[in-house]
This record gives sequence, structure tokens and C-alpha cells, in this order.
Amino acid sequence: MADPRFFRRKGPFDAAEIAKISGATLVQTTGASRSFVDVAPLQVADETCLSFFDNRKYIDAFVASKAGACFARPEFADRAPEGMIVFTSDDPYRAYAKAATVFYPAEGANGEISDGAHIHPSARLGNNVQVDPGAVIEENAEIGDGTRIAANAVIGRGVVIGAGCYIGPGAALTHTLVGNLCIIHSGARIGQDGFGFAMGPQGHLKVPQLGRVVIGNDVEIGANATIDRGAGPDTVIGNGCRIDNLVQIGHNVEMGMGCVIVAQVGISGSTKLGHFVVAGGQAGITGHLTLGDGAKIAAQAGVMKDMKPGDVVGGSPAVPMMEYHKQTVALSRLIRKKK
Amino acid sequence: MADPRFFRRKGPFDAAEIAKISGATLVQTTGASRSFVDVAPLQVADETCLSFFDNRKYIDAFVASKAGACFARPEFADRAPEGMIVFTSDDPYRAYAKAATVFYPAEGANGEISDGAHIHPSARLGNNVQVDPGAVIEENAEIGDGTRIAANAVIGRGVVIGAGCYIGPGAALTHTLVGNLCIIHSGARIGQDGFGFAMGPQGHLKVPQLGRVVIGNDVEIGANATIDRGAGPDTVIGNGCRIDNLVQIGHNVEMGMGCVIVAQVGISGSTKLGHFVVAGGQAGITGHLTLGDGAKIAAQAGVMKDMKPGDVVGGSPAVPMMEYHKQTVALSRLIRKKK
Amino acid sequence: MADPRFFRRKGPFDAAEIAKISGATLVQTTGASRSFVDVAPLQVADETCLSFFDNRKYIDAFVASKAGACFARPEFADRAPEGMIVFTSDDPYRAYAKAATVFYPAEGANGEISDGAHIHPSARLGNNVQVDPGAVIEENAEIGDGTRIAANAVIGRGVVIGAGCYIGPGAALTHTLVGNLCIIHSGARIGQDGFGFAMGPQGHLKVPQLGRVVIGNDVEIGANATIDRGAGPDTVIGNGCRIDNLVQIGHNVEMGMGCVIVAQVGISGSTKLGHFVVAGGQAGITGHLTLGDGAKIAAQAGVMKDMKPGDVVGGSPAVPMMEYHKQTVALSRLIRKKK
Repeated sequence: MADPRFFRRKGPFDAAEIAKISGATLVQTTGASRSFVDVAPLQVADETCLSFFDNRKYIDAFVASKAGACFARPEFADRAPEGMIVFTSDDPYRAYAKAATVFYPAEGANGEISDGAHIHPSARLGNNVQVDPGAVIEENAEIGDGTRIAANAVIGRGVVIGAGCYIGPGAALTHTLVGNLCIIHSGARIGQDGFGFAMGPQGHLKVPQLGRVVIGNDVEIGANATIDRGAGPDTVIGNGCRIDNLVQIGHNVEMGMGCVIVAQVGISGSTKLGHFVVAGGQAGITGHLTLGDGAKIAAQAGVMKDMKPGDVVGGSPAVPMMEYHKQTVALSRLIRKKK
Repeated sequence: MADPRFFRRKGPFDAAEIAKISGATLVQTTGASRSFVDVAPLQVADETCLSFFDNRKYIDAFVASKAGACFARPEFADRAPEGMIVFTSDDPYRAYAKAATVFYPAEGANGEISDGAHIHPSARLGNNVQVDPGAVIEENAEIGDGTRIAANAVIGRGVVIGAGCYIGPGAALTHTLVGNLCIIHSGARIGQDGFGFAMGPQGHLKVPQLGRVVIGNDVEIGANATIDRGAGPDTVIGNGCRIDNLVQIGHNVEMGMGCVIVAQVGISGSTKLGHFVVAGGQAGITGHLTLGDGAKIAAQAGVMKDMKPGDVVGGSPAVPMMEYHKQTVALSRLIRKKK
Repeated sequence: MADPRFFRRKGPFDAAEIAKISGATLVQTTGASRSFVDVAPLQVADETCLSFFDNRKYIDAFVASKAGACFARPEFADRAPEGMIVFTSDDPYRAYAKAATVFYPAEGANGEISDGAHIHPSARLGNNVQVDPGAVIEENAEIGDGTRIAANAVIGRGVVIGAGCYIGPGAALTHTLVGNLCIIHSGARIGQDGFGFAMGPQGHLKVPQLGRVVIGNDVEIGANATIDRGAGPDTVIGNGCRIDNLVQIGHNVEMGMGCVIVAQVGISGSTKLGHFVVAGGQAGITGHLTLGDGAKIAAQAGVMKDMKPGDVVGGSPAVPMMEYHKQTVALSRLIRKKK
């Protein structure tokens, strides 16, 4: 079970409830009243636990699992070990996510304002806001209902944060507007000056950065990620985006809805991403590009050209994925010939 | 206009003043007394605003702009839409930077020491220093005139910071000397131990890191960037350098004047950069190298050899830029042949 | 000498003591009583200083050095300048590390709990713990004997930290157990949610992350590095690991003993590393892989397959190192032919 020092568990829930919550199909309806106290990975779950089998790589763990119940794709239902209740779903991971969230609901704000927080008298806090020790909220900032500002986070002058958000320890936001239900992880830096200056041998002259960062609803931004504010236009992060740890987003970047940006990616200034663009870890995207909806970028790729909707690229400089695979094969053949 | 929650504007200024401030040439001298209240991007500027046209990619925005005035290269002056006042300059971006700075001057320190700051009695603060809530200034640290230490920043024991600097929220400096007019952005980490240990199967033995970080004047260091102190010699950042977000600089690195290091670059220990070296985003530079003045490194390149002054390289491992382009072409030809 | 504003020196020590401490061999035993006051790099050391010569690249500095004594490999002993005492060792850097540590011992905790720290009454602090201003220690956290929590660090609810650790300024730990003698540098973020969600066009659904980060003894974690907690299993960092600045470690990653992970490396979720795995700067390792003991990964490599013990790889996608070198050569030949 999850370590009780860190996690607070609800439950138990019976199989019928779990099916309802998760939207998955309970195969053996005779088990509908069996109840479960926890969720756990296949390898450690026991008969009181609910687990999931999604990545086929773990089929051996599935067939050997002692889990009392498990979410799985329909085609694997008959591979389940004896006694395991199977919930089938075309997306077992999503079904598991829904179930796990009722066992371990997000904690939310507790409505306590720490005496050790530094809150400017002009700041406006909604109902049930939590502000932890050492957090700083500067003049005219606004914090929505039920939002938690964790320890030592800094909310700069005039920053607006919506309802139900979590701002992690030591994160700092300036010149930023944040929607509702956003999670900004520990140490993220949002709204500072972009890398804007006029280069020259007589010195690099700073250009005032006069835009903001505008973040939609239901956005998650990773630990120690950095998002610079716009130079004149705003930097925009669309609803539902997921941005991982240590990602860098330059000034004036615009991202549509639901983009997924994996750790350590860098996106240079003024590049526009459509909806549901996905970038693998450590990929780099140069500035002033346009990437269409659903574009996909492999890990470590270096994108230097516009991408049409649905394009998939890899390599540095990035080329269409098929071409990249062929390059890799051609290169390995080339050295075999030379032997 | 820039969001007044975040930015404080001066002005208006008339065209004659703007020409003088920016060093650009006012083409239609009849417009000298026309006055402007703000700066804005080409796409959103109206007749009261000043804009700039630098990157040719945006020519369509220029010819369609409603901006009252615009900085542009002389060869584009006759493409300006009717009624637009044009200031010509060979470096319109730099001219704009100068003008924008009079509309939106840097704020500077306000001379207030927050009750919520933690300042050791032995620390020495100059005139008009601003220290925000939660900032920590340890024993014997020295802060120069007009410097601002933002919320929750940490200035370690003995650290010296010059005049007119800005240390962003949550930044931490130890074992460091900083010159004048420097900007250290939010979350930057400067002066911690380098990655110094004697490796071995019996364990990796820590080597005391006995140097400092010495930063010149007019240096800008990005959000969440990391600069380790020297192992014995110092780590040195020359005057006028611009270091972007999430850059890593190893122990004993020395950088000359005016280097520009784009986001997520890593420079390994003991490498020496001359003046005005430029490294594109995510490039890596291995340790113990010497890079001559004006060397240029493409984004994502991996530099493993010394570079002579003016050398330009790309690729991983990095090769001269022309060679890198040819490699890219050769590789794409190779797979076309194989079809 | 090291700047006394930052470093506190012990000594002097005589050559016989230094030989004993370092385990190196004093070649000229007549010098056994000569005493030394400091350590310094070859280029700046004078006759009162002890230095070391390890990387052959610096042979010129060695033969020209004015250092009073120096650690060196036996085969270089007769290249030493006149009057220099030589300590021979097969690992001069390790011998130097031991000697330097007696001149400049780690400072350790001073036992002072700052009035400006925010410590929950339920937190348990061992003997001689130091807590600096602005540090936050949340409910039920436990801090071992002689550990220092630096300024503005955040120790989350229930976190356990062993004895003799150093938690740097502004670091934040949640959902984490740390062993003894660990160094967590400034701004490191440990224990936040991993990048776990069920992707889908109807939105990306967050999956509760129910594991912890479990860190062994004698581990060093770099500035602004990020380590996500497990999704269900734990994220595990073995004894003696060295993790550099800005490294990203995904959820469920497990590392054996003594791994060395250089700056800006990214390790994706659920990958398992054996003992003494080494990854060069900016390398990326994809998820769900197994890397055997002693595997070595070149800088900027992109590892997409399992590695057997002792495997050495480079390139992206990574291939065996010999193959990678041949690819590089083949590619450079290819373009020469085309001219």
C-alpha cells in the first residue's frame, strides 16, 4: 500500500462501484460485491488490491499477479490468473486512473493561511485558499478559491491564479495569468524576462519584455521548468497541456490544447504549436516555426522547419520519421560494408 | 499596451525624441512632432504606437501594420504602409530596444527592506537596496547600491554583489562575487560544489571544491541555470555575457566577454571560451577545451575538440558547419538510393 | 589560497602526515618533516602548497609548477621540477581528495535552529541539526543527527532524512526517504508527481502517483536536478550515486550503487540501472529499459534498447561505441567522395 506518511486512502470500494467509476466492464459479474481496499502494481498487489495491465511488455507480470482485480484490454481477459476479477477496457490505464483517484483523491487546499506566509495586504484571496509557510504573495495578486500555494512559492505582483490550482514549493510566477485546476510543480519559473536582446560587438542590449504568460485550465507544468513571458505578444499555454520537468519555453511561444511536452525539451521563441502536439524528451524546436495539430516529435529530435498537421519527425536535423529510420539503417549498413 | 498590472509606462514621446534616443533616422521629418504613447508588435500596434520590423519573415505584417511609426532597415522604408512614420536603422531591433526602454524603464530597487527578510547583522547593504520578503542574506555578505534581492532568494555567507543588480525570486548564490548591473533570474543556482570526485569501485570520493564563481558586469543569467564554483581556480563569467535558462556551467569554466549561451546548453568543467562565443540551444561542450573568440556552435551540437577563433560547427560530434550540412545532404541521398 | 570569506582552512600538515592521510608514497623521505599550509592548482601553487597532477594534458603545468609538493603517477615522478616533493599514487586525484579534505574539512551542521525557520511542532529533529532561516519542515518530517537544512529549503510532510546530510538552499523534498551522508544541492526537486497521465483526445487524465523516492547513503544530487516519485513502486537511488545538475529522473527509475549521471541527462520512467552505470552529459535514456552493471553511455547519446553489463554506447539512437566511431568516420568519408 502507499506509504501512509505521504498518502491518505479512502475506500474500500466494491467491484460494482469500481466498474461504474472507471467506465470499464466487469467480466465476471458474480464478483460485483467483492471489495477492494487499495490499488497496487501487478508485482506487489495482493487479493485485496486493484491493479492494471496496459503495456504488453509486462504480460508475464500480469499472468503471475496475485492482484484481486485488474484492468486489462478485452483480448487479454482470458490470460488472467485464476481468481482475478478482470475489468476490461480499451484504455485500461485511463480506467485505472479513474479508480485510483477515488482511493487516493487529490488533497486540495485546507483553507489555512500560515502565519509564516508573507501576503501583501492588497492581494485578494478566494475562499478556502491554503498558503503555506514562507510563501510570498505580492501586491494586487489574486488567488482563486481552493487554490494551494505551497511553502516558499512566490506569486509576483499582479499575478492572477484561478480556482483549484496547486503551486508547488519554491515555484515562482511573475507577469502571469493562470486558469483553473492547474498544477505548477516545485521550482517552476514562469513569467521572467525572455532571452531578448539586440546582439552586437558593442554589447548585447536588453529589449524590454512587455508580454505575459497566459496559461489555460487544467494545465500541468513540471518541476524546475521555465516559461518566459512574451516580448510584446504573450506566451500562451493552452487548456489541458502537460509540460514535464526542466522544459524550457521561450518568449511568445503559443501552444494549443492538450500538447504533451516531455522532460528537457526546449522550444525557442515565437514558435506556434497547434493542438495535441507531442514532443519527446530532450527534443529541441527552433524559433518562429508553426507546428500543426497532432504533430509528433521524437525524443532528442531537432526541429528546424514547419510541420504540417499529423507530421511525425525524428533526428537532428529532424526529418520525417520513416526517413529517419532509413537513415539509421543506411548508416549501420555503410559501416558494415567498410569492414 | 502592456498589461498595467505588470508594467509601468512612461511617455508619451514625440518622433524627434525617439530618433534621438534610438539613434535611428527619421525619414519623414514632417512627422517630428507626432507623439507616441506606447510600443507594440506590428500586428497589434495602432497609430499611437511605435513598432519594429527586423526579421524579414514578418514582411507581410509590416506592410499591413497599423503602427503609427516603425523602426526598419533603410531598404524597406518604401514598403511602409501609408501614414506610418519610418525610422531607418541598420539594426532596427537595437534601435527599438533603446526606444522601448524609455517607455518601460527597468524598475530598479525601491529601497525597502522587508520585515520578512532574514538579514544577518554582519551583512553590509549599500544605499537604496531592496530586500523582499523571505530573502535570506547570510553573514558578511555585501550588497551594492540599488540592488534588489527578490523574494526568497538566498545570498550565502561572504557573497559580494555589486550595484544595480537584480537577483530574482528563489535564486541562490554561494561562494560567488558578482559585478555591477547583473540580472540573475529566478531559481538560478550559482556557486555550489562542482561535480568533483575521484571515481572508483570502492566509492566516489568527494574532492573539496575550493574556488569561487566570479561574474563580471552587465551579465544576465537565466532562470534555473546552474553555475558550479571552481575546484581550485575560479569559474569566471566575463562582462556582458548572456546565459539563458537551464544552462549548466561546470567548475573552472572561463568565459570571455559578451558570450551568448542559449537555453539548456551544457559546458563541462575547465573549458575556456574566448570573447563573443555563441552556443545554440541544447549544445554540449566537453571539458578541458579551448574555444577561440567568436566561435559559433549550432543548436544541439556536441563539441569535443578545441575551436579556433571564428570557427563555426554543428552536429554531434561537431564538425565544421559546411561539413555538417554536407553530411545531412549525403545522408538523405543515401536513403534515396536504397529505395 | 582559497578565499577565506568562503572557506575555513586547517593545517599546516607535514609531508609524513599527508602521506599517511592520502595513502600515497612519499618518494623523497628526506622531506618528511616539510610542512604545507594549503592545496592549490599546479599553475598557482607555491612552495607552501600541495598540488596534484592527474590529467596528462596538463604535463606542461606539472613540469613548470612551483608547488612544494604534488601527487602524481609513479611514471611521472622523475619529471617533477627540482625541489618539489612528489607523492606517488596510481590514483593521484583520489590521494589529493583525501589530503584536501583535511585542509578543508566539510563544515557540517552547527546545531543552530534559526528563529526564521518554520518547523511544524510534530517534526522530529535529531541532535546537532542546523536549520537556516526560511527553511520549512512540515508535519511529521524527521531530520537525522548532524544534518543541515539550508535557507529556504522545504522538507515536506513525512519526509525522512538521515544523519550527516546537507540539504541546499531552496531544495524541496516531498514523499521522500533519504539515507545518511547525502548532499542534495540547491534547488533540487525530489518527490513531486511523475509525468503520469492517461493520454487521450478527450483530455489527459492524471494518474495518482503513489510511490516515493528512496535515496540510499552517500548520495549526491546536483543543483536543480529533478527526481519524480514512483507511480506505485518507488523511485530508487542506490548508495554512493552521483547525480549532477539539471538531471531528470522519471518515476519508478531504479539505480544501483555508485552510478554517475552527468549534467542534463534524462532517464525516462521505469528504467532500471545496475551498479556503477555511467551516463555522459545530456544523454537520454528511454523508459522501461534495463541497463546492466558498469554500462557506459557517451554524452548526448540516446539509449533506446537494453544494455548488457559493461556495454559502452554512443550516438542517437545509441549503438556500440566502436560502431558509433565507425559511423562518424564513414559519414565524413562519404562527403569527401561527393566533392
